[in-house]
Amino acid sequence: MSVGADFDALVRRVSAPDDNARAAALTRQARLTKPTGALGRLEELSVWASAVQGRCPPEPFGRIEVVLVAADHGIARHGVSAYPAEVTAQMVANFLAGGAAVNVLANQIAAQVHVVDVGVSVDVEGADGRWKVCNGSGAIDREDALSETALERALIAGAALVDERVDAGADLLIPGDMGIGSTTACAAVVAALLSQAPATVCGRGTGVDDAGLARKVEAVSAAVTRLADRRDPLAVLRTVGGADLALMTGLLVAAAARRTPVVLDGIVSCTAALVAARLSPPAVQWWIAGHRSTEPAQRLVLDELALRPVLDLDLRLGEGTGALLAVPVLQAAVATLRDMATFAEAGVSDRSNG
Amino acid sequence: MSVGADFDALVRRVSAPDDNARAAALTRQARLTKPTGALGRLEELSVWASAVQGRCPPEPFGRIEVVLVAADHGIARHGVSAYPAEVTAQMVANFLAGGAAVNVLANQIAAQVHVVDVGVSVDVEGADGRWKVCNGSGAIDREDALSETALERALIAGAALVDERVDAGADLLIPGDMGIGSTTACAAVVAALLSQAPATVCGRGTGVDDAGLARKVEAVSAAVTRLADRRDPLAVLRTVGGADLALMTGLLVAAAARRTPVVLDGIVSCTAALVAARLSPPAVQWWIAGHRSTEPAQRLVLDELALRPVLDLDLRLGEGTGALLAVPVLQAAVATLRDMATFAEAGVSDRSNG
Repeated sequence: MSVGADFDALVRRVSAPDDNARAAALTRQARLTKPTGALGRLEELSVWASAVQGRCPPEPFGRIEVVLVAADHGIARHGVSAYPAEVTAQMVANFLAGGAAVNVLANQIAAQVHVVDVGVSVDVEGADGRWKVCNGSGAIDREDALSETALERALIAGAALVDERVDAGADLLIPGDMGIGSTTACAAVVAALLSQAPATVCGRGTGVDDAGLARKVEAVSAAVTRLADRRDPLAVLRTVGGADLALMTGLLVAAAARRTPVVLDGIVSCTAALVAARLSPPAVQWWIAGHRSTEPAQRLVLDELALRPVLDLDLRLGEGTGALLAVPVLQAAVATLRDMATFAEAGVSDRSNG
Repeated sequence: MSVGADFDALVRRVSAPDDNARAAALTRQARLTKPTGALGRLEELSVWASAVQGRCPPEPFGRIEVVLVAADHGIARHGVSAYPAEVTAQMVANFLAGGAAVNVLANQIAAQVHVVDVGVSVDVEGADGRWKVCNGSGAIDREDALSETALERALIAGAALVDERVDAGADLLIPGDMGIGSTTACAAVVAALLSQAPATVCGRGTGVDDAGLARKVEAVSAAVTRLADRRDPLAVLRTVGGADLALMTGLLVAAAARRTPVVLDGIVSCTAALVAARLSPPAVQWWIAGHRSTEPAQRLVLDELALRPVLDLDLRLGEGTGALLAVPVLQAAVATLRDMATFAEAGVSDRSNG
């Protein structure tokens, strides 16, 4: 399916990061006072930072923003989560009051948190509800997650948010998520797009028990069965996804189109990344994976997109927390490429047998 | 072997971190607004921070110091490294000028770097040489690394440095290393203490080629063969270790005795940790492993000490770099336990089926 000319145009605008800056970064890395390759993944990250910034050396990322997307999922009423559905709205209030993990971790790196209600069942005072498309997505085991109109509006909302945040100065975006039931929708999207069995993609989410996990697998199975075409990314998103996943998909495509790098978080942002990559394969080059979560579907997506996570800390919280934790490593990578002395500058002998 | 009453007394002073603070931290973790366990390893780290600080919630670590220990190894003259031996002194000058990776990464977290020359072949102006015990350790394939006097002085130097840094306010220590040839000495110590084959413990260090790696395995084999008792930690340290490893062993025991936590770095600090743990088993509880390096001996030690590394970034630089990179994760862990709202404070419903 297609969702209109505006989004199609956005998809076509995505191109690759700067190859010249990437090449310059590789050359500079080889001259720094350390054995070649000794900084391991920091070297890769520093080269990526150069490429997405289009300069070598890169600058520290100066304005990091979490777009924290909240939405409810109808399927949450059917026993797939360890928590009741009203927790979504309660947690949005917690985000706005600054008491959640995402707030604390954002403070650690002076990142901003922008809370967007795109589909919470109730309206939460203080959240950005300008692009709200529904009061909860449909229960995907029996009905479509979104109408065609809601899907298009959510995708465009993601793009509008990117424009707004980037115009305001954001140079690194983090998609965060909150929505009881969201990992069930993610599992359905990943099962469909990667042709995986429901039992393979379902994890325990917030910590559901064995009976809940069985219900989750059943729900994903029923959802995927309803799909006419399991390979059409937008149809999958509309039928078994949700408003949060749709907004994030728009955000990820739009960020790439605006040449703005993104740190992916857990299963929700990675599932959106899978959809976005199917729509626009070069967009992947604008993203890094912040961490490997304990959710099996997230690991499958990272493998599929060949994104190697920066951290592996057994996190399964979402909100953008894993991505926020990865930022200091990324900033450190930038700093090494930018600030370390070269062999020539420091008067250090280079390797004897290389 | 034993090295005198002062060091023996230090070893006996080591006791475990605070169990009451640990218990309070576990209780508080369970009340924070997130599913139980959803912050994964951050939860463990926050509990460790409470235990070593003796309070719950813990405070952010406020004065982090790298004790960067430089020493030469006689074995470096025998083709075991990709770099010539004079690089040790050149890199010490680079540390003092602020151009090395350790400087850049320390700046990222406002850590201090204290450069100690305990055994560099030449004297490097500007380095702290107050506790220098030799101009390079012996070539361990044919002679002892250290005399008994040098060993004792290096161990006591580590303790003296801890006293000095902790008295000045340091609340988190990082042992950093610089010494061409050091990974060969580490491999010999680990081979001896863990009864491993030389080929199993030898890695490529700074990036030695195949012929160099073969020479390294041969050197380790010859070194271990010279040992009368492969289980006596101090005899192993003296015979096949080096001045850097001895100082760091003293530092690690003394830090535990002073109830000061340590973030371990790569193969050198981890090899010293193995020796220190053999001298004082409870000392391990005062350390976390900053990262998993690509050196096989480091991985063996982490497994032996049951220390799970925070990061796994394919680093193999030493200097304290991997430990420095782990500090933001540790500080983030502290911040979540300290600053997140509880379910009761935030008015969020706790799990429905837990």
